[in-house]
Amino acid sequence: MLNIYGFHLSQPSNAVRMLANALGLEFEYHELNAPEGEHRAPEHIKRHPVGKMPAIEDGDVTLFESTAIMKYLCKKAGSDMYPDDLIKQAKIDQWCSFVSVHVYMAYGRVVFNRLLAPQLGFPVDETSLAAGEEFLERFLPAIDQQLGSSKYLAGDSLSIADILLLATIDPSEAVGIDLKKYPNLIAWREALVPQAFYQDVHAFFGQAA
Amino acid sequence: MLNIYGFHLSQPSNAVRMLANALGLEFEYHELNAPEGEHRAPEHIKRHPVGKMPAIEDGDVTLFESTAIMKYLCKKAGSDMYPDDLIKQAKIDQWCSFVSVHVYMAYGRVVFNRLLAPQLGFPVDETSLAAGEEFLERFLPAIDQQLGSSKYLAGDSLSIADILLLATIDPSEAVGIDLKKYPNLIAWREALVPQAFYQDVHAFFGQAA
Repeated sequence: MLNIYGFHLSQPSNAVRMLANALGLEFEYHELNAPEGEHRAPEHIKRHPVGKMPAIEDGDVTLFESTAIMKYLCKKAGSDMYPDDLIKQAKIDQWCSFVSVHVYMAYGRVVFNRLLAPQLGFPVDETSLAAGEEFLERFLPAIDQQLGSSKYLAGDSLSIADILLLATIDPSEAVGIDLKKYPNLIAWREALVPQAFYQDVHAFFGQAA
Repeated sequence: MLNIYGFHLSQPSNAVRMLANALGLEFEYHELNAPEGEHRAPEHIKRHPVGKMPAIEDGDVTLFESTAIMKYLCKKAGSDMYPDDLIKQAKIDQWCSFVSVHVYMAYGRVVFNRLLAPQLGFPVDETSLAAGEEFLERFLPAIDQQLGSSKYLAGDSLSIADILLLATIDPSEAVGIDLKKYPNLIAWREALVPQAFYQDVHAFFGQAA
């Protein structure tokens, strides 16, 4: 049985859950109480050496990092959301990395300072918040342009890059990131959010797990 | 012919060059004059929509993001630095993502504030610098522990995860990050730095391209 360990405000955790739904996998989801530090407890440090989320246990295999997990699950299932073609795979890898390294990092600054810091009593870092917003002004137009040139992020069919992006931009409304300037991104998102793989995680970002 | 576009102070650019050397590929390296903004010029925006480095052109294929490029080059060459085994690949993906998303992000804060900001006349962000150093205090022990339990980062043979890590920690001395606390990391690094694939990029980080 596949076990997924995550937190409902963790975008990468939600990406893995959405993918497991999209693949039709049977799995058990374990919500870690991150505000209480359950992700830093010895039990979870066995799964992830610095206590990040998500992590999975799949029989004998323990794995962390959302993109690695998503590729593993797709390859194991033989899914065309990560097809076995050199160029297609390279383009999916490219966009997954662009989203997880750059777009997620920028969202992280905004989500931390607008949502988590106030909730958890940490000081807001206005410089970091402003930098996050500036990065998004640079990165989201590239995403919007790409979604104007192909139906999905890495080509003409749905891939793990789309699911990762969908979960990454999920907190936009909750933290005041305005996506109206990005019509292709909005249209792409509106086609995906109603689907069962998303709705089975939550109806909207932040909904209690 | 493979063309690699990069900048000699860009760790991901150097990772791709080191890998191309390690694979014994014929390639042309193009140093972009980043301080003069050559990476944001229209010519490079055709290769990377937000002007990041590295990017490659390999015949008809244009690709960006170092991890995507490294996987593509290995698979094309049939190299066992990214072998075709489900679990081995997942572990390499996991460590590549951990390094590029978390370790590189933390180095980025330190490298920017200690090296680039003073050179380019940007203000130093002491909060971001301190956060980068704190992240490294959390992430590098996990790397050191892993390199104590296996010869290489993702198992018993050299993989792209090692080359990515080697290039990522390359600026440590130049920006005052002390690795002495991490004996496994030091021993692993000392075995790799003398090798031709590294020395053919530079004898030390920061050496002019």
